[in-house]
Parts: sequence; C-alpha cells; structure tokens
Amino acid sequence: MLPGERIDRLGYHGLRIIQNPEKFKFTIDAFLLTGFIDPGPKDRLLDLGTGAGVLALLVAGTKRIGSVYGLEIQPELADMARRSVVLNGLEEKVRILTGDLRDPPPELKLNSFDYVISNPPYYPAAKGVVPENQALATAKFEICCNLEDVVIAAKRLVKGNGRFALIYPSERLVELASTLERHNLIPKRMCLIYPKPVSKSNLVLMEARPGVGRGIEILAPLIVSGQNGEYSDQMNRIFQGEKIE
Amino acid sequence: MLPGERIDRLGYHGLRIIQNPEKFKFTIDAFLLTGFIDPGPKDRLLDLGTGAGVLALLVAGTKRIGSVYGLEIQPELADMARRSVVLNGLEEKVRILTGDLRDPPPELKLNSFDYVISNPPYYPAAKGVVPENQALATAKFEICCNLEDVVIAAKRLVKGNGRFALIYPSERLVELASTLERHNLIPKRMCLIYPKPVSKSNLVLMEARPGVGRGIEILAPLIVSGQNGEYSDQMNRIFQGEKIE
Repeated sequence: MLPGERIDRLGYHGLRIIQNPEKFKFTIDAFLLTGFIDPGPKDRLLDLGTGAGVLALLVAGTKRIGSVYGLEIQPELADMARRSVVLNGLEEKVRILTGDLRDPPPELKLNSFDYVISNPPYYPAAKGVVPENQALATAKFEICCNLEDVVIAAKRLVKGNGRFALIYPSERLVELASTLERHNLIPKRMCLIYPKPVSKSNLVLMEARPGVGRGIEILAPLIVSGQNGEYSDQMNRIFQGEKIE
Repeated sequence: MLPGERIDRLGYHGLRIIQNPEKFKFTIDAFLLTGFIDPGPKDRLLDLGTGAGVLALLVAGTKRIGSVYGLEIQPELADMARRSVVLNGLEEKVRILTGDLRDPPPELKLNSFDYVISNPPYYPAAKGVVPENQALATAKFEICCNLEDVVIAAKRLVKGNGRFALIYPSERLVELASTLERHNLIPKRMCLIYPKPVSKSNLVLMEARPGVGRGIEILAPLIVSGQNGEYSDQMNRIFQGEKIE
C-alpha cells in the first residue's frame, strides 16, 4: 500500500478495491453500468479508462464472463488497479494495461472484444472547476480524451457483432447519440437514471452496436433514491448484482 | 353532423370534439403534448397536421394563449375540426387551414410562430398494416409526410426564438434527435412516457429550439397507468390541465 491509499469494500460480493480518496473514489455509476450490461459467459470485455479498476473488478467479480481487460492512461491508477486485481484473486480473469485509448497498445487487437464499456470523463475540460489533483481531474474532465476519442476507440476495438455500453450525463444525451451514430455505432438500448422519484434525469446508460438498423429500446426508469435519500429497492438490488431490465 | 360522426367529450374542461371513429379518434397523446408545452399568454401557436383539431382545441380551450392555428391536409378532417371550433365557441382564437405542410399556405407566414407543435404520423408507410381507411392511414402512417417534412415545416414556420414540440415513438428517439439537429432545431427538453410503472418507454415528448447551444433537460418519467391499468394520479392531473414538469 502506498501513502494515502486504503482498502474499501466494493458492493455486496466481498469484493475490495484499493483507493486513494485524493486521486480516485468509485461512485454508484460503476454499479449502474455493471447492472446494465449483459455479457455472455465467454465474452472478452474491455473497459476503456478503467481508473483504479472499479468496473473491471465489478464485472469480473460478479458476472460469468470470459476475460476482462482494463485500459488506463495514468500509470499510478493502473498500478493500483493491478494490485486490486491481485487482492481479489482475479489475476486469471482480469488484465490491466497502461496506455492511451487514442492509440491503444498492440495487446488490444482491433475488433476483438465482444463488449467494450466505459465510464468516461463527463465534463468538457473548459467547463466547471477542474480539481487541483491531476488524477481526479483526468478521470472527470475531458483532459486526456473526449467523448469522440472514446467512441472511436470503442469502434476500433469492438467486434462487428459486439456491443459498446457507457454511462454518461443525460444533459449530453443528444451529443452522445449523434457521436455514436457518426461512427456507425447505432444506439439500441438505453436506460435513464433519475436521482429521486420526481426529479430530472442526471445520467443515461446507453448501449450501441456497430452497423445495425436504427430503433432504440428504452428500459423502465431507474430511480436511485427514495424521497428521503435512502437507496431505492431497485438500487439495492443492483448493488446485489441484479440486472437492469 | 355528417353520417358516422358523433360528438365526444374532450377531457375534463367541458370541451367537445366532433369525431368519426372510422376516420379519426383522439388518443391520450394529445393530452400528453398539451401538458408538455408551456406557451406564453400572447403566443401564436401552430399545430402541424391537426387532423380533427384535437390539439388545437385542447390548447385553445385549456391554456392562456394568443391564437392557435391548425394545418390539415385532408379537407374532410379540416372541416370537422372547423365545426368543432364553432361547437366550442373558439372561433376568435382558433383558425383551421386546409393545406400541405410541405408547401404551407401563404396565410402561415414564415418564422411567425412562437410555438409549433405536432403529433405526426408515427410509422413509416412501408411498415406494419396500413388501415384500409384513407383518413386514418394518413394520420398514422407517413403517407403524406414523413418526420423530416414535419421538421422542415416547423423550422420554416417557427420564430427564431420560438419552440417546436412534438410527441413521437420512443423507438425512433435517435432518429428524431438527429433529424431535428440536422435542421438546426436543437433538442432542449424531453420527457419519456412509460405505459406502466415497470415497462419500457413507448413515447417521447420533445421540445427543440432553433440555433441554440446543445444540452438537454430530461424531465421526471411520466407513467400513464398503474399496474392494474387504471390511469395514474399523474395522468389524471394531466387530463385536468396540469403541466408536466
């Protein structure tokens, strides 16, 4: 363990993750995206911008799946992720690579993944207050990559019959859909996240497929908390590994 | 009254509408769109493809608004709409024009409407079973106009600081958003309609504005019915004229 690091529980499955609260702390967004995807038991899955590895750990630790790759540009986060993989005994299943998704390392073969997923930076670099900490800033703001970079990488790496799923701010839904379509990833399945029963949506889960016909399925609304702030039954079931349907 | 016609109640406001069930019957979609829009008290509003005038009557009869125009390509439906306007004493406020939205009549001045609204045909002409009745087919299928025709007409007729709102199948959301953007009508506000508490969305309410920056607000989910099929409290409030927020 390095200075500032600690080990935290990750959901209800006995998984644990090494985090440094100053650099990276997982959010419920990783649980939402994990609940949304539906990989096959032999699928090869890639998480673009895996950070401290939260999505790679959650998917490998809670789903029947072939193998999980995580790509992270920040060496210290990738290192933390690798140590979390060992901590959870997932070395057989999970591989963390250090590299830039704009120029993926050769270990990641083009069009070789059944599923590509991402919890990319949500905010344009120019907008809002960028955190002073560089690691946190890179995870949250479009400093090292923007939405289009992530979509281009997904398109290059996903199989022709594969899927790309991500979580993104609802406010940017139209931009997301048009960026996906521009790169021939057709939005096919979507779920809107609402923080409370009567609130505007803040996040969207989206799944796209290469080169298929248009037509999107919009799942039932997912409401995270009750009026008093406690997690909803639905959200608690997602923490326990239930699929979003 | 012509053969086959009858007078039906239209919501809870004492409004009535002349319908011929073989040619046109209003649905809750008109109430949803009316609840979604938020015109100013002096606004000039235009309904593209008004059919038997249900949206024009609802908006004029339940909202403070300047004037309401309805454009309808089928003369017999436009005539029915005009008689419904008289039946409700709304002649001062509502004007029904017969004409093709692809070549709007000169009474509809370009860029002169604060609000353009539409409940356009939902289904491509080639798809599904087209009803034998021509009037019904034209209202439901893209026979006389497709989505792009409606969007082009809206863009031509709406003011530079005006709004265009419509209701459309959720399945075609991505196509809707990209068609709007292609004509520089930027999606700014949206509400998804779900038939039941745990069901996929079937309809989307969308509002766009010409030439503004991107970024969309997604309102709380609107659930039409309870698990037993009875209308939800929310839907009953919309029938009573409550705004969707």
